Amino acid sequence: MGKEEKVYMFDSILRDGSQAQGVSFSVTDKIKIVKKLDEMGIDYIEAGNPSSNPKDREFFEEIKSLKFLNSKLCAFGSTRRSGIKAEEDEGLEKLINSGADVFAIFGKAWDFQVTDIIKTSLLENLNMIGDSIKYLVSLNKEVVFDAEHFFDGFKNNKEYSIEVLNVAKRAGAKWIVLCDTNGGTMPNEVIDIIQYLVKDLKFDNIGVHFHDDAGMAVANSIMAVHYGVRHVQGTFTGVGERCGNANLSSIIANLSLKMDYTTIKKDMLEYLTVAFRYISEACNMTPNERTPYVGNCAFSHKGGMHIDAVRKNPKSFEHINPAFVGNSRRILVSEVSGRSTILPALRKINPKIDKDSPETKAVVKRVKDLEYIGYQFEGAEGSFELLMRKELNVFKPSFKLIEYKVIAERPYISDLSATAIVKIMVNGKLEITAADGKGPVNALDKALRKALGVFYKELADVYLTDYKVRVISGTKATSAKIRVLIESTDGISTWTTVGVSYDIIEASWLALVDSVEYKLIQSNKEE
Amino acid sequence: MGKEEKVYMFDSILRDGSQAQGVSFSVTDKIKIVKKLDEMGIDYIEAGNPSSNPKDREFFEEIKSLKFLNSKLCAFGSTRRSGIKAEEDEGLEKLINSGADVFAIFGKAWDFQVTDIIKTSLLENLNMIGDSIKYLVSLNKEVVFDAEHFFDGFKNNKEYSIEVLNVAKRAGAKWIVLCDTNGGTMPNEVIDIIQYLVKDLKFDNIGVHFHDDAGMAVANSIMAVHYGVRHVQGTFTGVGERCGNANLSSIIANLSLKMDYTTIKKDMLEYLTVAFRYISEACNMTPNERTPYVGNCAFSHKGGMHIDAVRKNPKSFEHINPAFVGNSRRILVSEVSGRSTILPALRKINPKIDKDSPETKAVVKRVKDLEYIGYQFEGAEGSFELLMRKELNVFKPSFKLIEYKVIAERPYISDLSATAIVKIMVNGKLEITAADGKGPVNALDKALRKALGVFYKELADVYLTDYKVRVISGTKATSAKIRVLIESTDGISTWTTVGVSYDIIEASWLALVDSVEYKLIQSNKEE
Repeated sequence: MGKEEKVYMFDSILRDGSQAQGVSFSVTDKIKIVKKLDEMGIDYIEAGNPSSNPKDREFFEEIKSLKFLNSKLCAFGSTRRSGIKAEEDEGLEKLINSGADVFAIFGKAWDFQVTDIIKTSLLENLNMIGDSIKYLVSLNKEVVFDAEHFFDGFKNNKEYSIEVLNVAKRAGAKWIVLCDTNGGTMPNEVIDIIQYLVKDLKFDNIGVHFHDDAGMAVANSIMAVHYGVRHVQGTFTGVGERCGNANLSSIIANLSLKMDYTTIKKDMLEYLTVAFRYISEACNMTPNERTPYVGNCAFSHKGGMHIDAVRKNPKSFEHINPAFVGNSRRILVSEVSGRSTILPALRKINPKIDKDSPETKAVVKRVKDLEYIGYQFEGAEGSFELLMRKELNVFKPSFKLIEYKVIAERPYISDLSATAIVKIMVNGKLEITAADGKGPVNALDKALRKALGVFYKELADVYLTDYKVRVISGTKATSAKIRVLIESTDGISTWTTVGVSYDIIEASWLALVDSVEYKLIQSNKEE
Repeated sequence: MGKEEKVYMFDSILRDGSQAQGVSFSVTDKIKIVKKLDEMGIDYIEAGNPSSNPKDREFFEEIKSLKFLNSKLCAFGSTRRSGIKAEEDEGLEKLINSGADVFAIFGKAWDFQVTDIIKTSLLENLNMIGDSIKYLVSLNKEVVFDAEHFFDGFKNNKEYSIEVLNVAKRAGAKWIVLCDTNGGTMPNEVIDIIQYLVKDLKFDNIGVHFHDDAGMAVANSIMAVHYGVRHVQGTFTGVGERCGNANLSSIIANLSLKMDYTTIKKDMLEYLTVAFRYISEACNMTPNERTPYVGNCAFSHKGGMHIDAVRKNPKSFEHINPAFVGNSRRILVSEVSGRSTILPALRKINPKIDKDSPETKAVVKRVKDLEYIGYQFEGAEGSFELLMRKELNVFKPSFKLIEYKVIAERPYISDLSATAIVKIMVNGKLEITAADGKGPVNALDKALRKALGVFYKELADVYLTDYKVRVISGTKATSAKIRVLIESTDGISTWTTVGVSYDIIEASWLALVDSVEYKLIQSNKEE
């Protein structure tokens, strides 16, 4: 269908996504996400609103050092205010000063919004749009014009909404983006309107921006492309205002795999699942496991009949090969899945192992058992390496825990609210020590490293760089299970470990222990 | 558009939904859900597969006593096996014995499935379908025929897939349901195929059953209705195999509110949100808060500009009036929102306050200050109410903390790994007590409620229903700040509170304290 024609992908997770309930990015989070989107080959990254938000200005300052980006970095902002010149508008000045490559300027395309909400004249609204775009274009900037509320505007006053587009086009906007800002437009309306613009009015530089308030954001985007649109805005995980934006990971997969369009580079499609999970985590959101293509459940089979059929021929119950998007089939309730997945890692430890070795089966079983009680090894390669070594009987613990005790109290003196005592044994020698810290986990971390440092000098350089907590089952409240992920570094490499328990301190302890054990294995390898 | 024409709603949450990862119904759960779907006015309830599943047979036995159902209860099963008579087929016999009102029989409509998966001849497959339907119709049963894999079949061998439909029609099936079993069909394909069947081949009794593997299930269902389909299958919350089924709550709202079709009775639409949450809970699933129309976020506004606009006129950023589906607007309190956001809440406490009162400014400043150090009041209306009361000087603490001490240790005896001691003072009286628990927070929660319970009997019914932990800045690792959100209930209402600290125990403590203080304020109001 698409004959490999290019459709430009525009991600707004750092802007529209940040307006979603529960999402709040630090500058560091934003830079992580930009790097990942760039690596995936997203064409445009809308990274914030430097005209209204000081945190976003700080981000644009920091990102300037990342000179190697292939994606175009886009700053979002309003047209000039009513009644002044574009050159005098503070918001536009801040936008320009951000140093972004591209500027997404939004203006109203629904007459009601002009007269009743921003309360200016229909003519002045057109001038605000035209002037702002012309000004940016005169500075040789690329401009994306977001025609806010376009679909509602079209239904209410078709002529005016079209005039808004024409003004933006004449002023030199590269892309004119039709926004379904309130998210309530149906696919048949989208099809009719896009056909009218593309076939009858000959617009050739149209983009779309859909919200999911009626559950139509992905379908509307796909139908828009089918009828001639070549620029699609959305967010990589679908998160955005209210019910969310169009999910770009679904759009990329649908356009590339089902409709023969070019979106991101073909060889990056197989990283779609990893990128989805990475970006969800960077947003501090649990990845929605039922997300099309990239969710954990997307290729999971439960019914016996379906499992049998998939074994005979996967296409019987899979609409695509999960490997195309880097996902994998999950056979639930069965022990036969995953052996070929883990084989390469096992062979690094013992090259003689093959798919049918008892060790392979034992590792798969252990992973399944631990996942059942809440573990997750996808992002915890340190703990997974230890798990394999334990099952292969090539793991020797570096120490034995005799006891830890952690005390947290309030009121507390100074800012250290917790104390930890750790008693361990290494090669028959006892070591007991204590440390205080900002909270119980910090105290425990310090005490463990202090005790182990007596025996293992190579731990001196290790420190934690990230700490994540997930409550796994929300219904049992404070006695729910807790999963802790810890990221550690020795300044050269970085590794992640995992622990699960009803007790957050114990879960943290398990991840801390894996972190030091993993480091000690790596040091031994080097010797 | 729809001119109030009736579209029949067919819910399969108890059958297709039960094939989703993580879903498992007891007979009691199923009966609860049947009653709710019946109350909502769903036309057909597909309640299980009595031919293959003994639990489902038990369910159909039990449900016989519910004589007052308006919905038609449907049993799902396969056509007769190959090579025998329909009258001799055990599966069909068990179906009939279930006593259901309607029988949904599935048969293959994709030639590849016949030859490669069930491995019979194309002719025998047609006979299996025709014989089974004829047999049930001869017993005066209503039959819904699920043409499994119809869309993939149509694309592979159009003639055969159409012949399957014709056989079912001639045999007397009331509805012929086109299933997108693997969920990969695009809306433009659906539109073309439905138009062909309805306009060219004059089928007038077609239903559809879509899966969400490409994110298209709702859109495909809506487009099918737009082109003549009058029977839509799905599940009320969208849960189903893999990525899920078409979400019936979205379909009902879209068809009834946007396209002028009749689905469930008009006066039941305003219970859509309550029913969605009730059924999610009965499935033991957290309701997806970003679900169109009925999710918690569906009408929540965060950005200051949007909040101002919605205040001026709700239709500026709401595609429908949330009351139509029994949902409500949520104005999220965040650093990006201004004074007008919080004014209505402040006025509930003190009606004399206006936008320029010093109290209003003080509350905004306090919110900003606390958000700066990691608080988030968006989802924490309990803590926000307390914050306002403190700034308005109408808050009197119910107790004073003298000291708490929490001890967590390993190894531990039994499964209670932590102990908490709490010493508080209420009206000059000291109370000290202790509790052990699954982890430090659980122990602290139990100890606090135990100590306070001596003075406040109304706390006896309160318990925690959710507990969320967020590490706010991931770069300082275990000394990073931690935000805890706690959801509590007294069995009638539900409220959320928040605490932030470097110490997870202290953060939990702050949220626990707000939870009990909020409850005590509500109890005082009632008196």
